[in-house]
Amino acid sequence: MLKYRVKPIDVVLEENMIVINEEDARKSGLTSGSRVFLVDSGKPVPAVIGLSRTLVRPGEVLVPVSVLKSLHLSEGDYLQVKPLALPSSLPYLRKRLLGERLSDTEIMEIVSEIVDGIYDDAGITAFVVSQLIHGLSEAELSALIKAMVETGERVVFEETVYDEHSIGGVPGNSKVALLAVPIAAAAGLLIPKTSSRAITSPSGTADTMEVLANVEFKPEELKEIARKTRGLIAWGGKLNLAPADDIFVRVERKLGIDPHHQMVASILSKKLAMNVSKLVIDIPVGTGAKIENMSEAEHIAALFISQATRLGLTIKVVMTFGGQPIGRTAGPALEAREALKTLMERRGSMSLVEKAFGLAGVLLELSGKVPQGKGFEAARSIFESGKAYDKFKEIVEAQGGDPEVKPDDIEVGRYSFTLQSPAEGAVTHVDNMAITMIARAAGAPEDKGAGVYLHVKTGYRVNKGDPVLTIYSNSESRLNEAVALAAKHSPIVVEGMLLKLLP
Amino acid sequence: MLKYRVKPIDVVLEENMIVINEEDARKSGLTSGSRVFLVDSGKPVPAVIGLSRTLVRPGEVLVPVSVLKSLHLSEGDYLQVKPLALPSSLPYLRKRLLGERLSDTEIMEIVSEIVDGIYDDAGITAFVVSQLIHGLSEAELSALIKAMVETGERVVFEETVYDEHSIGGVPGNSKVALLAVPIAAAAGLLIPKTSSRAITSPSGTADTMEVLANVEFKPEELKEIARKTRGLIAWGGKLNLAPADDIFVRVERKLGIDPHHQMVASILSKKLAMNVSKLVIDIPVGTGAKIENMSEAEHIAALFISQATRLGLTIKVVMTFGGQPIGRTAGPALEAREALKTLMERRGSMSLVEKAFGLAGVLLELSGKVPQGKGFEAARSIFESGKAYDKFKEIVEAQGGDPEVKPDDIEVGRYSFTLQSPAEGAVTHVDNMAITMIARAAGAPEDKGAGVYLHVKTGYRVNKGDPVLTIYSNSESRLNEAVALAAKHSPIVVEGMLLKLLP
Repeated sequence: MLKYRVKPIDVVLEENMIVINEEDARKSGLTSGSRVFLVDSGKPVPAVIGLSRTLVRPGEVLVPVSVLKSLHLSEGDYLQVKPLALPSSLPYLRKRLLGERLSDTEIMEIVSEIVDGIYDDAGITAFVVSQLIHGLSEAELSALIKAMVETGERVVFEETVYDEHSIGGVPGNSKVALLAVPIAAAAGLLIPKTSSRAITSPSGTADTMEVLANVEFKPEELKEIARKTRGLIAWGGKLNLAPADDIFVRVERKLGIDPHHQMVASILSKKLAMNVSKLVIDIPVGTGAKIENMSEAEHIAALFISQATRLGLTIKVVMTFGGQPIGRTAGPALEAREALKTLMERRGSMSLVEKAFGLAGVLLELSGKVPQGKGFEAARSIFESGKAYDKFKEIVEAQGGDPEVKPDDIEVGRYSFTLQSPAEGAVTHVDNMAITMIARAAGAPEDKGAGVYLHVKTGYRVNKGDPVLTIYSNSESRLNEAVALAAKHSPIVVEGMLLKLLP
Repeated sequence: MLKYRVKPIDVVLEENMIVINEEDARKSGLTSGSRVFLVDSGKPVPAVIGLSRTLVRPGEVLVPVSVLKSLHLSEGDYLQVKPLALPSSLPYLRKRLLGERLSDTEIMEIVSEIVDGIYDDAGITAFVVSQLIHGLSEAELSALIKAMVETGERVVFEETVYDEHSIGGVPGNSKVALLAVPIAAAAGLLIPKTSSRAITSPSGTADTMEVLANVEFKPEELKEIARKTRGLIAWGGKLNLAPADDIFVRVERKLGIDPHHQMVASILSKKLAMNVSKLVIDIPVGTGAKIENMSEAEHIAALFISQATRLGLTIKVVMTFGGQPIGRTAGPALEAREALKTLMERRGSMSLVEKAFGLAGVLLELSGKVPQGKGFEAARSIFESGKAYDKFKEIVEAQGGDPEVKPDDIEVGRYSFTLQSPAEGAVTHVDNMAITMIARAAGAPEDKGAGVYLHVKTGYRVNKGDPVLTIYSNSESRLNEAVALAAKHSPIVVEGMLLKLLP
């Protein structure tokens, strides 16, 4: 193992790379593309070798600033470079490629070596594809989920942890948790919800909450907030919960696949890492949602239930209507505004409030605080009493936001465009996919103010010229793009007519 | 598509990478790790994005010298950077992952996008693994082979091209072609043999031939040599014959897999790219060889025959004894010396000369120059007449070597160590795997002089203290390593006794 003197280079790379002198490389049997471990005092960091004759002298190593930071090293420090052998769990992977079942320890070894960076994309993909082709047995899937939990950070709470989670895929859904979590917490349940940012939707729960408060916390900070408020809504991204999940998802995205068992593993592993023991899963079903028919939804529900049971989680799966957007908004600021307004006014869009009551209600029933069948009503009365809003203000304040913020204080995109109904008649369809596409084209979720406001939903009657849809953006050119998409994709259909584009 | 001013950086990377300013990246929606095409006048080159704030100004791009060279660009030139979308053949790949068969054009599209660099390792691995798990149909395998040929260089000859090829896996085998090719060429056959360098063996045919002559030629040079000599022995590596093969093999090596259909596709595609129409395949079978039993050999032979037939190739498959090394040597210089000595003296190790006669004989029969069943004898008489040696000298000269070189002129490793028999008795086993491991530990094939000389082979009688094995190396420390391995792995077994290590 050779020791090199560090020379920083101001560059940010996705994959760690270091550059050493050609002569050093030859002596130590390394070449460009060789995979190595960078060894300092902490955990070894994997990297790829590049070569140079002039950028570094023998004995020196050029290290990108991003890598230096993660190693806590600076110029002139010494760094050891150790060649990375093939993963020792490769025989198990080959076994699985040939269709054999793996034991818990074999799966654990593969997952740890993946998380430790010993596998490259070829090996990770082979593992993912082997699961796709030779479906995982129930025992293998449990072992996979356990391994995903054990190879990451775990946040431990002293009492029963509750959570609700939607598999997503419907625009406007990110704000449901902003109602459901304070309702459950107001009833005394401990519900430290971690959620993701949007990947393909206009906003994730973390994106929407971030409009009102901070969402990035360290594990100790999460526990401190939960002690105060019982509920919180944070981003799980930097907590290193089940990091294998992010690695698998990255590869799956490259292949354009999204296997059901991976969705189940992803959600359950992140929840187990947060010590959740009572969980409600929401599967929105409908045209243009991630899950379009009931039989697929039932298959996923069965997978969730069997795995949760094996893993000692109490679970309830709720299938909800996902055939059109939830509430009237899609996009971080618009959704935050709608959630806040709904909490303050103690009423709002039926699709939003009833969904929140349904999910929070099941949590209340699971807790035993409310008899079976009474959860929905109990949730509604917490909401209507204003206790949910009070709890939400506590949460916003505990997460460093302004609890007194009003809906109109929330800035939405400064450019907007309203589409009108081309005729009198009934709204026959609001298209999830088109709404998502338009909101993202307008800049959501990166542009927090970008998104879509629905003046009408399926079943509404409109007159010719009535506003049906307003698109918001902070960029004029993105707004124009979004408007052009709206003209092409008919997000709202009034008895078969296309929308009129004039403002 | 943005245009950047080129700034070179003296670094050699395995994967192409360029660094642009963070501001430019943000504006064009790129981030670190984004995959792009570098577009100049020629074929677009794939690359990965790195970011910097200070190394490049907005409008500049930092390009490794290795990439600049392939683009024929220099400092101050302009380079266009185009975001790389997902491969357009991804739906076909997903179809195959789900177990559906692909059409010829679907396979062609996947293979071309792989060769064009549009796929990354995840996609390539998914394609390879899908073939491993859902075995290819005969039609799919033919389509794959055709696509591999069509996406690479093709060398066209005016008349029938012959060749022989061993699937390898037995130490000492690389020198067989140095006898078989000149025998066939001396009989008038056109046999422009391209071969590979060693990957896991002590020497490949190209490595061994390179001890005596050049082996790297451009297609026109190959044709020029073949016009003069009818035969040649070159390295196929830089000819860009069926480049998809090298891409698949790189990924397979990472996974430690070597599927049979890939071996067949690899060999047939490279041969078809060289315009071969009459081919003899050698499958060595025996303990410690790549193929250890006849039923596996027959399975591979059937695959070769059915595919060759579908692809319009005349093929003969020969199974040869592979239970111990071929001839007495393993390692480039040692094998070159043995082949040269055998050709000059018109006699040599039975396992070497009989194998060469067998393979060349089948070629002679295929050509119709010799009646069926008379090939072996015809090959032997060409060899014994000295015509094979004369032809070999022509070939060596045409390939820029010294035709008058004598076996003793060939330098072997300057350090050596001889192992002795621990007892009187019969040699009961010479272990292929141990011989390979020892020769490679001694430095073969990179150190051309490194390798192993066998004083005895299976069935020989020895007295206590007789030399049985000499290890050569140009590095004293590598020699010691190889000797230690020999002590551990019993390369030669004399009636069950271990070797004595004293010199």
